[in-house]
Amino acid sequence: MSSYDYDLFVIGGGSGGVRSARMAASLGKKVAIAEEYRFGGTCVIRGCVPKKLFVYASQFHEHFEDSAGYGWTVGETSFDWTKLIENKDREIARLEGLYRKGLDNAGAEILETRAELVDAHTVRLVKQNRTVTAERIVIAVGGGPNPHVALPGHEFCISSNEAFHLEKLPKSILIAGGGYIAVEFANVFHGLGVETTLIYRGLEILSRFDQDMRHGLHEAMEAKGIRILCQDVIEEVTRTPTGELAARTKNNELLTVETVMLALGRDPATRGLGLEQAGVKVDERGAIIVDEYSRTSVPSIFALGDVTDRVQLTPVAIHEAMCFIETEYRGNPTSPDHELIPTAVFSQPEIGTVGLSEEEAAKRFEELEVYRAQFRPMKATLSGRAEKTIMKLIVNAADRRVVGAHILGHDAGEMAQILGITLKAGCTKDDFDRTMAVHPTAAEELVTMYSPSYRIRNGERV
Amino acid sequence: MSSYDYDLFVIGGGSGGVRSARMAASLGKKVAIAEEYRFGGTCVIRGCVPKKLFVYASQFHEHFEDSAGYGWTVGETSFDWTKLIENKDREIARLEGLYRKGLDNAGAEILETRAELVDAHTVRLVKQNRTVTAERIVIAVGGGPNPHVALPGHEFCISSNEAFHLEKLPKSILIAGGGYIAVEFANVFHGLGVETTLIYRGLEILSRFDQDMRHGLHEAMEAKGIRILCQDVIEEVTRTPTGELAARTKNNELLTVETVMLALGRDPATRGLGLEQAGVKVDERGAIIVDEYSRTSVPSIFALGDVTDRVQLTPVAIHEAMCFIETEYRGNPTSPDHELIPTAVFSQPEIGTVGLSEEEAAKRFEELEVYRAQFRPMKATLSGRAEKTIMKLIVNAADRRVVGAHILGHDAGEMAQILGITLKAGCTKDDFDRTMAVHPTAAEELVTMYSPSYRIRNGERV
Repeated sequence: MSSYDYDLFVIGGGSGGVRSARMAASLGKKVAIAEEYRFGGTCVIRGCVPKKLFVYASQFHEHFEDSAGYGWTVGETSFDWTKLIENKDREIARLEGLYRKGLDNAGAEILETRAELVDAHTVRLVKQNRTVTAERIVIAVGGGPNPHVALPGHEFCISSNEAFHLEKLPKSILIAGGGYIAVEFANVFHGLGVETTLIYRGLEILSRFDQDMRHGLHEAMEAKGIRILCQDVIEEVTRTPTGELAARTKNNELLTVETVMLALGRDPATRGLGLEQAGVKVDERGAIIVDEYSRTSVPSIFALGDVTDRVQLTPVAIHEAMCFIETEYRGNPTSPDHELIPTAVFSQPEIGTVGLSEEEAAKRFEELEVYRAQFRPMKATLSGRAEKTIMKLIVNAADRRVVGAHILGHDAGEMAQILGITLKAGCTKDDFDRTMAVHPTAAEELVTMYSPSYRIRNGERV
Repeated sequence: MSSYDYDLFVIGGGSGGVRSARMAASLGKKVAIAEEYRFGGTCVIRGCVPKKLFVYASQFHEHFEDSAGYGWTVGETSFDWTKLIENKDREIARLEGLYRKGLDNAGAEILETRAELVDAHTVRLVKQNRTVTAERIVIAVGGGPNPHVALPGHEFCISSNEAFHLEKLPKSILIAGGGYIAVEFANVFHGLGVETTLIYRGLEILSRFDQDMRHGLHEAMEAKGIRILCQDVIEEVTRTPTGELAARTKNNELLTVETVMLALGRDPATRGLGLEQAGVKVDERGAIIVDEYSRTSVPSIFALGDVTDRVQLTPVAIHEAMCFIETEYRGNPTSPDHELIPTAVFSQPEIGTVGLSEEEAAKRFEELEVYRAQFRPMKATLSGRAEKTIMKLIVNAADRRVVGAHILGHDAGEMAQILGITLKAGCTKDDFDRTMAVHPTAAEELVTMYSPSYRIRNGERV
């Protein structure tokens, strides 16, 4: 036992913080964890989990429509937003309870307060107005939506935080942004019957994803009836006399909607945290700077998860927490591995992806083989739904390694998870070719694309 | 050009036959293909494809029910069997057309007739009542449901063939069998509102699958309301005065139902094919005996697909066809690879599997690590549906290779396809562990099971 109040003090009860606190406590360390809002963090409280529940909710109208081609007749359907929110909130409360229970069972002390740094080993508990000391401190306070205060009328707009608790479902929504949050919410609101417009500064939604995924999803969303305005931005939002919102854009569109949602990136939640006082360095965006072991500029203070702005994903924060535990409490220095992280966009259709986009791979390798399949999913043959699945494998011709795998279509996220294993293990296209198809599945396309659709040599398609 | 009428004559227009004919023709060979019924074979006409369409149809009632927890209200629903059959038949006809078109485009001659062997190089076209000769002959006539003629009353029963064209949906059905066909149809009929009973001779459905999959599916089916009678068989079927069928079982149950379906295995369709006359040897079940290059006892005659009873799966027949082409027409002797074939059972929930069951692996390896996760899928949290997903990895402790992967749950078939790549490539559990989770997915369990649930040492669970 050290001379400090705690062996470890964790600030922030999200994925990374809870994992650090729970693991350290289960190793017999004296641990406290402070959270000012709710345990579970962005993921559980206002991110991944409620988002995916919304996605499920928004898919039922397509199930109803699709059933006709399969012989079903469905009576009139209606949707009750309040009921969805209530049921979602009940589930989130249950999950929050599990997080608390896990901490409790491991013997970590739960402190329901904002906590701020005082110095290298001291934390102030704001609610209790007292300070405590700890040998090590982990900052895992996450981040939040960028409020875009430079936009006149930003105060009329909501962010994803509020989207999870709207009192009523709007008739129309304008969503600003082209990242996965903007795209996912556009599909959710559209699926629930809201007239939806997406506005994005860039040339195409989802920058850094593979072009086929970006174009394919863009087309699919427009075909559903989502309006997408690229290369345009909102310049001002005003309240109209009838209580709606009017958004004027750079291209001189005037969009009148019930709700405007800004999804313009997320900022590390470091303001007022006492970082400067404690000597913890941040970058120009306010993200805490860490070394390869998640250590900040103060040797006793660590930071992990979204607040470090390395990769803003729940499993990455958890992984960073596990590496911190290995390094600091198990004598096994372990750096987080941020290579080849598979991810999903829960758009409709879904995107699942791992490794390099064609564009990125073309910069790194002399010659690529690109395998690309585009097909109508079997279910759509009878439902009559106009949709297509795209699957794409990017192969380094020199050693036949699959360096990128991209799927647009149903269950793409599930597939990306397992494709992630194949890329991490360095599987080659020959490994894919050697694998027998499972028929009828969509994924069988991944093992039956025998000849390249085209090649890229020195950056040029040949 | 040889002195024969054809370079290659293919008997049977299913997956293996069509692929052989099409590939050989596209290599410039003179090819004919004879089919007595419809092109596409079991897979397209009365197997995989229409089966999966039925599966989709039978899942909608769960979508309707699940929607309530997500805030939806659905008016009265009804199902029209005739409409499903019509739409299904239209799609099957379209696919058959594509098969014909593929043959046509490659330059293969299509013969709509039964064809029978005369000798090592001669085939009789039954409809035309003439013979033709070929340098090589491929027999790819597939198989059909075992009619179980030893059962008194078998003539009152249907097989899967008839199930695809029932004039009306029965109110009740008794399905005999414990294989994947019996299980899939039991779920389909139940999902369409038919009172369904499954009767199976063995201790547990789906012999040779992993026990957890077998028990898990059994429980899930019973929980839905499907009655399952194991260790029992139908001993007699009689027609009742009211026109129903009465099935008396070995355990003295008397089951009165509208329809009885037998799914008791499939037999090679070799009867009357002239095999004996041509000198082609068959085994005691009538399956054509072939060597590792699919060559029969007659050097000019080859057989592939279900008629050889190696592995009765569409992709395997296609693979055998591709190997035949490599060997005979590309000078590259290639044996079909029947190891580590991933497969799916389109039950509800689905099973996806590749590699060894725990039981089988325990016989082959001294020590196993078994990783097992059982959880409620996220969608069920709000739908309230009582269902669980089971995921299981069997790892050889000596070298950490994953030797079996088994999933019961949504999208298990899609996952099995990609897991198949990892097993074929020899991936280890460490490769799985190194892979970042995709959150929230079901498949992330596959990469986050860090400690074995238990071990098997010398066949004993420890």
